[in-house]
Amino acid sequence: MPRTFKLVLQYDGTEYVGWQRQPHGESIQGLIEAALARIDGKAVTLHAAGRTDAGVHALAQTASVRLHTALDPATLVRALNANLPLAIRVLSVELAADDFHARFDARAKSYEYRIRNGLTVPPFERLYVWHVPQPLDVDAMERAAAPLVGEHDFAAFQGTDSEVHTTVRRVLAAGWQRSADGLLAFQITGQGFLRHMVRRIVGTLVEIGSGRRREDEIARLLEARAVQDAARTAPACGLFLVRVEY
Amino acid sequence: MPRTFKLVLQYDGTEYVGWQRQPHGESIQGLIEAALARIDGKAVTLHAAGRTDAGVHALAQTASVRLHTALDPATLVRALNANLPLAIRVLSVELAADDFHARFDARAKSYEYRIRNGLTVPPFERLYVWHVPQPLDVDAMERAAAPLVGEHDFAAFQGTDSEVHTTVRRVLAAGWQRSADGLLAFQITGQGFLRHMVRRIVGTLVEIGSGRRREDEIARLLEARAVQDAARTAPACGLFLVRVEY
Repeated sequence: MPRTFKLVLQYDGTEYVGWQRQPHGESIQGLIEAALARIDGKAVTLHAAGRTDAGVHALAQTASVRLHTALDPATLVRALNANLPLAIRVLSVELAADDFHARFDARAKSYEYRIRNGLTVPPFERLYVWHVPQPLDVDAMERAAAPLVGEHDFAAFQGTDSEVHTTVRRVLAAGWQRSADGLLAFQITGQGFLRHMVRRIVGTLVEIGSGRRREDEIARLLEARAVQDAARTAPACGLFLVRVEY
Repeated sequence: MPRTFKLVLQYDGTEYVGWQRQPHGESIQGLIEAALARIDGKAVTLHAAGRTDAGVHALAQTASVRLHTALDPATLVRALNANLPLAIRVLSVELAADDFHARFDARAKSYEYRIRNGLTVPPFERLYVWHVPQPLDVDAMERAAAPLVGEHDFAAFQGTDSEVHTTVRRVLAAGWQRSADGLLAFQITGQGFLRHMVRRIVGTLVEIGSGRRREDEIARLLEARAVQDAARTAPACGLFLVRVEY
């Protein structure tokens, strides 16, 4: 009898085509499925809480999979890490309820978007931040983010190639944090997100912070519900999936 | 009249053959000299405080160069960064005394060696730490490091391909720090270092911490003065040049 496992994963998305298997290029899903198949002796399908795009990172992605293996979870962690590139690590494996599904059962997901605001980016961060050299009014960006919280139609912030039944999503929290060394981080928690939604929100907030858009732009875009009004999409490398709650 | 400039540099050494120009491969010296030559209109020679090996990083390397350019230091910073890969950043440029030489005038250099001690390495750190999975007795490693301080013959810790007049060096401080998230860092300051000296010291200390060598091994090796007794060389990726004092 197969059992259902819950995996918590961390990865550097720089060199991959994203979570999802693609016709060309290495995907995170594909690499982990291949490692699982070597252990289980047959093909498996891994479901992630959030299908991160190419270049997007994860501090704690969650995935579910049904396996026939008799290995215990701790041994699975070691066996998987031995079969994966160092850019992808399995932090933990645990047995889950038979019908557990990482995406459908997720109650909330948290993302963080990191910006290095200043003359230069430390070389060690260059793959993990968006470099914004111009001065930013972070207080204005914090005020502008407030209207995001609640249930809204986020049509203005979806990717142009999205196909979804509804563009209404509930955001539970959103705000900026500035670390001691000057890194800016936008943290957002929601029940679900449209494709590119966090990166388009950040793109808009940075235009507000640099004075190119008005402070009430987010509220206006939420009312407009039209994708053509959306701001530029912030680059993938600054985005981290940080937590999934069940 | 040429003027002498002092540059402070940060770099990720992963993809380079080291500081020094080599017949094959990209060196940090070579790339910065090429950027300087584009600005100055002629070939220049850049002298670094410490010629870091392939794969070694710098948080604040210092270098000196004589230039004919009339550009002011702040403009030089911007011009250089625009002409360098993102893995190499110029943090500052300032005018120095005419006879300033980054290596000969250095009074002390500080290095840090970073170890991730645990089951896995976060993907974002994989190029910047040495992964030591076995348990380490950090207290023993701290006690074992104490005899390093002072003037000693470090012959046992030099690289096998070194050619130097004397293997006597003065270490001003040495010790371990453990950060809140479990990263271990060995910090050492000295007037000068032999090639591979920090990495061989760390290799020995880790063997002490994991119980493969006795706690008095450092003291014994300092007395032995023989290179064949030396421990393995810790990998380059964990080493950072952090500061140069003048």
